[in-house]
Amino acid sequence: ALLEANGNLSCRCAKTTATFIHPSKYESVEVRPVGSSCRRLEVVIKLKSLERVCVDPNAPWVKKLLQDLPKLRKKAAPP
Amino acid sequence: ALLEANGNLSCRCAKTTATFIHPSKYESVEVRPVGSSCRRLEVVIKLKSLERVCVDPNAPWVKKLLQDLPKLRKKAAPP
Repeated sequence: ALLEANGNLSCRCAKTTATFIHPSKYESVEVRPVGSSCRRLEVVIKLKSLERVCVDPNAPWVKKLLQDLPKLRKKAAPP
Repeated sequence: ALLEANGNLSCRCAKTTATFIHPSKYESVEVRPVGSSCRRLEVVIKLKSLERVCVDPNAPWVKKLLQDLPKLRKKAAPP
């Protein structure tokens, strides 16, 4: 791929994976919106192992994950 | 409020705010799903100033933000 000279200086993900990661392994999901310093959407999953994995925002399971984020509270334990 | 003795040991947000924060200030949005070590959904906005703000997942603008996350790529600059 061509080097991108400008506009991506603060991207965090040099590569992404499309491999599915089960939600039970998530510590958190970080979404980095498109901005002037990184011109692509980045999705970083932090695992309970504290490893960070950059995932492909175009992978179907990642798209679904993003859509499901507002509903994650449904899994809450009863008070 | 009552102290929660168990199940919230790894929550990050002691308090949350419902005050709107404009997306232009976001560096990233971190979503922490409900889990065994924190029994509530947490949403942490990291500002470009690098300050982190815990926002109320029940605030209408936060719900909308979470729903809009998959669409943030629409703001991408043209190649």
